[in-house]
Amino acid sequence: MAMRMSSLFLRTLRDDPADAELPGHRLLVRAGYIRRAAPGIYTWLPLGLKVLRKVERIVREEMDAIGAQELTFPALLPREPYETTNRWTEYGDNIFRLKDRKGVDYLLGPTHEEMFTLAVKDMYGSYKDLPLSIYQIQNKYRDEARPRAGLLRGREFLMKDSYSFDVSDEGLQASYDAHRAAYVRIFDRLGFEYVIVAAMSGAMGGSASEEFLAVSAIGEDTFVRNDAGTYAANVEAVVVPQAGPVDASGVPAAHVEDTPDTPTIDTLVASLNANHPRPDGREWTAADTLKNVVVVLVQPDGARVPLAIGVPGDREVDPKRLEAQVAPAEVAAFEEKDFAANPSLVKGYIGPGVLGEDKESRIRYVLDPSIAEGSAWVTGADEHGKHVLDLVLGRDFTADGTIQAAEVRDGDPSPDGNGVLHTARGIEMGHIFQLGRKFAEALDLKVLDEFGKLVTVTMGSYGVGVSRAVAAVAEGTLDEIGLCWPRAVTPADVHVVATGKNRDRDGDVFAKADEITAALEAQGLDVLYDDREKVSPGVKFKDSELIGIPTIVVVGKSLENGVIEIKDRRSGERREVAVESAVDEIVDEVRGRVAGAGA
Amino acid sequence: MAMRMSSLFLRTLRDDPADAELPGHRLLVRAGYIRRAAPGIYTWLPLGLKVLRKVERIVREEMDAIGAQELTFPALLPREPYETTNRWTEYGDNIFRLKDRKGVDYLLGPTHEEMFTLAVKDMYGSYKDLPLSIYQIQNKYRDEARPRAGLLRGREFLMKDSYSFDVSDEGLQASYDAHRAAYVRIFDRLGFEYVIVAAMSGAMGGSASEEFLAVSAIGEDTFVRNDAGTYAANVEAVVVPQAGPVDASGVPAAHVEDTPDTPTIDTLVASLNANHPRPDGREWTAADTLKNVVVVLVQPDGARVPLAIGVPGDREVDPKRLEAQVAPAEVAAFEEKDFAANPSLVKGYIGPGVLGEDKESRIRYVLDPSIAEGSAWVTGADEHGKHVLDLVLGRDFTADGTIQAAEVRDGDPSPDGNGVLHTARGIEMGHIFQLGRKFAEALDLKVLDEFGKLVTVTMGSYGVGVSRAVAAVAEGTLDEIGLCWPRAVTPADVHVVATGKNRDRDGDVFAKADEITAALEAQGLDVLYDDREKVSPGVKFKDSELIGIPTIVVVGKSLENGVIEIKDRRSGERREVAVESAVDEIVDEVRGRVAGAGA
Repeated sequence: MAMRMSSLFLRTLRDDPADAELPGHRLLVRAGYIRRAAPGIYTWLPLGLKVLRKVERIVREEMDAIGAQELTFPALLPREPYETTNRWTEYGDNIFRLKDRKGVDYLLGPTHEEMFTLAVKDMYGSYKDLPLSIYQIQNKYRDEARPRAGLLRGREFLMKDSYSFDVSDEGLQASYDAHRAAYVRIFDRLGFEYVIVAAMSGAMGGSASEEFLAVSAIGEDTFVRNDAGTYAANVEAVVVPQAGPVDASGVPAAHVEDTPDTPTIDTLVASLNANHPRPDGREWTAADTLKNVVVVLVQPDGARVPLAIGVPGDREVDPKRLEAQVAPAEVAAFEEKDFAANPSLVKGYIGPGVLGEDKESRIRYVLDPSIAEGSAWVTGADEHGKHVLDLVLGRDFTADGTIQAAEVRDGDPSPDGNGVLHTARGIEMGHIFQLGRKFAEALDLKVLDEFGKLVTVTMGSYGVGVSRAVAAVAEGTLDEIGLCWPRAVTPADVHVVATGKNRDRDGDVFAKADEITAALEAQGLDVLYDDREKVSPGVKFKDSELIGIPTIVVVGKSLENGVIEIKDRRSGERREVAVESAVDEIVDEVRGRVAGAGA
Repeated sequence: MAMRMSSLFLRTLRDDPADAELPGHRLLVRAGYIRRAAPGIYTWLPLGLKVLRKVERIVREEMDAIGAQELTFPALLPREPYETTNRWTEYGDNIFRLKDRKGVDYLLGPTHEEMFTLAVKDMYGSYKDLPLSIYQIQNKYRDEARPRAGLLRGREFLMKDSYSFDVSDEGLQASYDAHRAAYVRIFDRLGFEYVIVAAMSGAMGGSASEEFLAVSAIGEDTFVRNDAGTYAANVEAVVVPQAGPVDASGVPAAHVEDTPDTPTIDTLVASLNANHPRPDGREWTAADTLKNVVVVLVQPDGARVPLAIGVPGDREVDPKRLEAQVAPAEVAAFEEKDFAANPSLVKGYIGPGVLGEDKESRIRYVLDPSIAEGSAWVTGADEHGKHVLDLVLGRDFTADGTIQAAEVRDGDPSPDGNGVLHTARGIEMGHIFQLGRKFAEALDLKVLDEFGKLVTVTMGSYGVGVSRAVAAVAEGTLDEIGLCWPRAVTPADVHVVATGKNRDRDGDVFAKADEITAALEAQGLDVLYDDREKVSPGVKFKDSELIGIPTIVVVGKSLENGVIEIKDRRSGERREVAVESAVDEIVDEVRGRVAGAGA
């Protein structure tokens, strides 16, 4: 049945909603697709629900096509399994917790690794039962600290999550590859630009991990890629290669120098150039200095553990990269009280002399991998107003390891050796990763192998943000006059507009529009039909632009000349066609055939 | 794609689950349709999800057919609208409440009157926008005190709820009638016995209300109906007609008598017959006495208000009927402390002398409507060991009103005057009711009428328990060997069983079963295909009986004779058919045509 605008539960709004930050979100609200019910929580109005269901169907079809089986777990979940894997604690404030009338703890599921793992444990026991891929499409809940960006970061959101279960690593790789291929088909079908990037698995544990990002200036994720298209990664996941060793034989012995009033890299560089010129005459730059940044890692149990990070003085520590490395711990500033508790650290002059688990401070000390064995640095001398020069890694100081936490910049070499990196922004649409045996071990999911021995199952976890995809498609396809849906997810195939004033006066127009609508539906098309009376053509046109259905058919005055108008929403191109052939032409256009060639 | 049992995420269980009370629930768990995740919270496994989705589709089709529009509200809801209608308080322990990270209150939606009302208020403003019917099919949450009976009383459950919005009472009646007709079609299609009964609207407020009950001995609802089929009502909703006045002119003046040690009706009747024989020689019976029962109504705000109910001594007050009358207040016992606080009440001898808002006790006093003006009673004299005889309603005592709280019994006259009532039990599957203007008033939903005047909208509310329907159908159709689905909701149309041991030894059997499965699917049928190797025919047959798909096709040894077997799950009838015509015969059987006549 056509959606008739005379009775459709829809009101388009002239003004932008006050709380909408993003253009696509503003349009989804203005065009009557969604309404905000609470921060980060949305109602899907009839038009919005149509789009959501289309995305859902595409995801389901591609999941079914790789043999994944659908089931549905509850959203209201018992605490116990999440306690076992420690995620009840690790999630911190990010999940919704509640108690039932008996005081028993529950949570609203943010993701269902535990439940899927337990279900397989409950039902399966042999390697012959595997491989298995199971999935659900279901509302999930996360108590986002800053629910904004509309559907892109909702607190109640529709997600497809699937999980694969295999006995061997090769099996996991095959399941992962199948999901990856399905995701490529899903995002190809959705019809917008996306990129697959290497990703961190973050709090989930595990190894290989990739994200499907919608390329978008308003995206919350920063990623890098090289020009050749051989490398793309989420910034958090960029792995800067370890610099090879350099020859330090010509470097003089380390020597401490007075550098008064040089608590920052800039003041230090100026002081060096003024008072300690290099023998070879080169200017000192920030890149010659080693900056030691101390932070506090707050563990899920609340414990505060300091960490020192050495990076070249011309780079900052990237908070997001650092957080991804240390999760589930959170990063906090090293404050005055922390300096007071660690008297060997001299603020502004911290050097490797006191850093390291085997040194005075007993603070773990990790270096950026760009810092090469044998390289010489100017760095803090652990004394106010003093720095040490010609301090050589491996000769004069050591560290406890390396960390991928320094900022990644436009123009940095691509880790695969192929050109340089460029940064861009994206919206995370899908995430696939090899969980490995973490959850299976925690929840004791074992099966008998072919030799009758119990082995731990290895798992993959794969997610698509279904409601987020609606927002991402909207953001990625809109133009300056409204939404502009790709055919795959449009709420209707055709928007028929009858421009008559009312049925009494313009009976012919309405009768013909009724007839065309019915004929299009008989051909299997979904039609949004603007049959409203006493609404001006101008308002109807504006609404059709705002709502963004790809093909707009105008039945109006030109009917007198035996023609109606077909308009392409994206290009704005209009053409008049004879009434007699209108339905065929519209069907061809919607089906993507050359107009007039088909039917 | 056929569901192949060699890879289907399914394990049938030999033993009943420990916590399942009802036969259908036991079978749903044993046959691998659902799993318990927590009390009253279930996981839908692949087979169960198929049935759930079929019920959902039937409901959606019939809602769409009456022009209702689908949308989806969140399940996680802000407190505020529920505060406005007072339901935040009235729901008591029956809803799940939670706080977000900022301490803001939320609830998990038990039903969405408020949200729908506010959405219409937000978007509509004129009588021309109405009538409107909108619905959603969505998980709902109730913190049941005793989550048992499996899916019949879950704490997370799938429900279709719709709401109608009209300007006039006639409009509401039309919307109500349209929903009623749609519900009749839905429950007819589901394929089990149901009855439509008059119902209380309970805590929802409102006027006309009917329930659709699946007739079932394990149902939690008691209903009554007469033999003629002209009357059916939930016991809570039975309205006993007011007895007409009787002539009291021959009744002597009331007189108090000593009736020592008669705190109960039985002791009283015995004492009367022994010591106070009637002038006309008839025996006293319990029906001659008036029993005054005092209870405490606990208001949602916690206030305790006593209520006295007068019923003939041969009947009890029915707690469920009473609760339905006084909701949202709850009924508590009148305890020793309450007697202490009301010294005019003499336990065991309470009479109308002190009852009534204008009397000494100031306790509201209401009578069963079977008590006629002019009728004479023996009742308490408000003094220990004393009763009053020949006390006439209207002459000697009055009450503050009537109440429908006395028990209804098998054999009671039908309120419509047509024969007598019989009691039976049922499962509430659907509920339709005329809310009226309660919610619209509370939330200020008004529209301009045709004269430009603001009028309050009148609403209807209509629910179908979708997940409950799955359980009700299972309970209503099972037999002693397993589930036995009606065609409308079966997880597959046909269950093909290949009885060979393995593909190496019985290649012909598997090849033919593969071929038949593919041919049935090509005809548009859903097939569950038992292609497991190394599983005995006995186990496969038992599983097919347990799983309960209506048509079972066995491909096995008889293939040597050119035949396969078609078995009707319900009747158990088997017939052999020639391999060549097997697919046509199966399709005919599934499509309900006479075997062999179609195709």
